[in-house]
Amino acid sequence: MQEPGVPKYLIILNKIVSRIKNNELRPGSKVPSENEIIKEYNVSNTTARKVLQEIEKAGLAVKIRGRGTFVKDLLIERSAAKILSFTRNMIEQGLNPSTLLIDSKVIDKDWSVSVSGEAFTIPGPIFRLRRLRLANDKPMMLETRFISLKYCPEIWKYDLESSLYKIYSEKYNKHIVKLQQDLSAIILDEYSKEKFGIRNEMVGLKVKGVTFCEGELILEAEESIYRGDKYKFSIQAVP
Amino acid sequence: MQEPGVPKYLIILNKIVSRIKNNELRPGSKVPSENEIIKEYNVSNTTARKVLQEIEKAGLAVKIRGRGTFVKDLLIERSAAKILSFTRNMIEQGLNPSTLLIDSKVIDKDWSVSVSGEAFTIPGPIFRLRRLRLANDKPMMLETRFISLKYCPEIWKYDLESSLYKIYSEKYNKHIVKLQQDLSAIILDEYSKEKFGIRNEMVGLKVKGVTFCEGELILEAEESIYRGDKYKFSIQAVP
Repeated sequence: MQEPGVPKYLIILNKIVSRIKNNELRPGSKVPSENEIIKEYNVSNTTARKVLQEIEKAGLAVKIRGRGTFVKDLLIERSAAKILSFTRNMIEQGLNPSTLLIDSKVIDKDWSVSVSGEAFTIPGPIFRLRRLRLANDKPMMLETRFISLKYCPEIWKYDLESSLYKIYSEKYNKHIVKLQQDLSAIILDEYSKEKFGIRNEMVGLKVKGVTFCEGELILEAEESIYRGDKYKFSIQAVP
Repeated sequence: MQEPGVPKYLIILNKIVSRIKNNELRPGSKVPSENEIIKEYNVSNTTARKVLQEIEKAGLAVKIRGRGTFVKDLLIERSAAKILSFTRNMIEQGLNPSTLLIDSKVIDKDWSVSVSGEAFTIPGPIFRLRRLRLANDKPMMLETRFISLKYCPEIWKYDLESSLYKIYSEKYNKHIVKLQQDLSAIILDEYSKEKFGIRNEMVGLKVKGVTFCEGELILEAEESIYRGDKYKFSIQAVP
């Protein structure tokens, strides 16, 4: 099966990777073992080991000592308990993040939002900002923020396709200390589908919340839609 | 408008409550103020105040000082960071919880599951238990647990419609110290829809995870489906 210039391990690797991507090898199931690869493809144990190492390095599977290598979930993971910018989250997942400004407008009153059964008010006027967040140029998340212009006057002067957390901290000396959010499942509406470039019906994860900075000050409200076919949230609960 | 035996405030209360339940008054919007109620229904301020207090007491709205009373989200809230039994969570929400055993079987091998990009193995044999969790007799959550019979031998001897956490702790001296879970959005499959008694397409929140007890011991894996029209998860994130 050796083709000139293509190392054996790469041919086997591609076969297994496409079985994972086709969902033929499902998350949680076992990738062929070293011995199975040796038998099936008639290769050395060095080659078989290299195949498994590469699958693991690509983030597609994890090795458990004494048990084998198992296919990982292909959804992007976002920790529910850690404040992490979209940008850093994508980089940590090995993806290339970018941001597209959709539109913005000034709302000349306070903004009220109910989160976890509590009602919060952001002091107006409010700067409503809608942005599309992308990873490797694919739309992943649609974000609407309601930013207090009382705390962040004339925020439109800054680059609104860059990190807002950075703008809050560097331009207004406001440092984020807590997010309080509700997470729910939705069917994407027409507006979100259009922005994501999707035609079919699809689920999404809706995050609705408020951002606190020092002194219990509520700087902004957020309402973001994460693509349900791309995202999951990870949780750690303790007593 | 006084009907014999029906206090005025109750008539007004019912009108406003049905506007909230119809989603005519949406979450986050303002409930009619004391003055508006006085004007519209020609009642005293004592009556108007009573109406607003009752709406708040019923958990349908929250009052913000100096701003008014705002409609709350009607979804049941579950904290993502706190280990809380379904039973206690429902009671805290003012609902009456119950549990229905669907089926169970013994799987004579280890059980592997991938959570937050890590693979975990529960030592077999495994007791797979499926239960439907209800609130006020309405199905809310469909739960599948994969319990290690190595750590909890003959668990079928106990009441499987009662609290498993209690059985783990009281019968096996195993105390839960951590849950690690992934949360994703799904479209309910036929099996779940049947169990929930739903015909229409509906979203759900899928929780997939493992339960740790002392000594980093993994006692069980869990795969639960929460009705998307009834549930939301609350999150607090810190840096």
